[in-house]
Amino acid sequence: MKVAVLGTGDVGKMLGTKLLEQGHEVRMGSRSAAHEGANAWAAASERASVGTFADAAAWSELAMLAVSGQHALAVAEAAREGLRSKVLIDLTNPLDFSGGFPPTLSICNDDSLGEQLQRALSDTHVVKTLNTLANPLMLDPGALQGPHDLLMCGNDAAAKQTVAAFLQDFGWSAPIDLGDIDNARGLEMWLVLWTRLYRALGTGHFNLHIQRGD
Amino acid sequence: MKVAVLGTGDVGKMLGTKLLEQGHEVRMGSRSAAHEGANAWAAASERASVGTFADAAAWSELAMLAVSGQHALAVAEAAREGLRSKVLIDLTNPLDFSGGFPPTLSICNDDSLGEQLQRALSDTHVVKTLNTLANPLMLDPGALQGPHDLLMCGNDAAAKQTVAAFLQDFGWSAPIDLGDIDNARGLEMWLVLWTRLYRALGTGHFNLHIQRGD
Repeated sequence: MKVAVLGTGDVGKMLGTKLLEQGHEVRMGSRSAAHEGANAWAAASERASVGTFADAAAWSELAMLAVSGQHALAVAEAAREGLRSKVLIDLTNPLDFSGGFPPTLSICNDDSLGEQLQRALSDTHVVKTLNTLANPLMLDPGALQGPHDLLMCGNDAAAKQTVAAFLQDFGWSAPIDLGDIDNARGLEMWLVLWTRLYRALGTGHFNLHIQRGD
Repeated sequence: MKVAVLGTGDVGKMLGTKLLEQGHEVRMGSRSAAHEGANAWAAASERASVGTFADAAAWSELAMLAVSGQHALAVAEAAREGLRSKVLIDLTNPLDFSGGFPPTLSICNDDSLGEQLQRALSDTHVVKTLNTLANPLMLDPGALQGPHDLLMCGNDAAAKQTVAAFLQDFGWSAPIDLGDIDNARGLEMWLVLWTRLYRALGTGHFNLHIQRGD
């Protein structure tokens, strides 16, 4: 599948590499197609390429938004035309580190970044998922032994099925579907607990498991 | 141990009954010592009694705050003198149902009800815990098969040890200690996800397990 990874940071590169390993074609989207880090990353595979956010989105069959929360809406706006009628996996979190660590959220409680993205991209099927765990586990759930869960939400049932099938190839069993995109409030507010668990445990190598009894 | 349960609702009664089963003496605190429901509950055991919030707190060796979030500060204020130098287990959540279900939080992100309680009760050791799961599991973790976790936070290490030992008798292994009371932000914001999981799963018979690998 042609997957656009919008974002050139650590998350974007890690996702891109995992996607290539799984046999996908990957175009990394950046503000400029001349982005040095993105081009260095893409040099490693014939199935990897680099483009602007708009180019990568237009080329893709599926897109993943992997930028920091503060840039998410601007990147979505830049990619908007190319994302029409497509599925966008939103793994962003509105983390605000201006007060140090652990962060607060720049949006929460009665709104969420997931909802803002869906409002900005009214012709795109936004599916929020993967934002609830550390980068190395996102497309490699088997790296953490024992049962653990992925959560998702979004307004379009078919888009959620597409995302679930896509993630299954990486080892994820069916994500817990919370319902419409407003449930992004829960998925994003979890990060306030996640970052404090990260601090207390001294590692990001953990994930939540919803224990429902054996 | 003499345990005050501040609150006469479903949570208070359930906690009170579990505490009696475990051999504790329990005084249920209410706005009025003549509270009908509390007296009906107390009639079932010689080790159960009823008093005002102030009476129950003054009598107790350990207190549990089990009222709805909107009443938590007023009840804490009423019990303040009696709670001096004692441990208060805060299991409240600042849930706001004015917009329906799922609720929002009336306090979050840069403050929490746990912190507000600790500020109001400066001579009391507030330990936040048990707020993260359904009432029937609070003092009966064995009712849910498989591993699952309890989280706690508070400023006083000895108070947290007291609470951990107290809860161990009910079957809880050591809670994950997140640190100071400001971590109540994480414990309370989890409820936004919890309530949405409750809706999606159609049951409150679940709890989070922090999967850290086997």
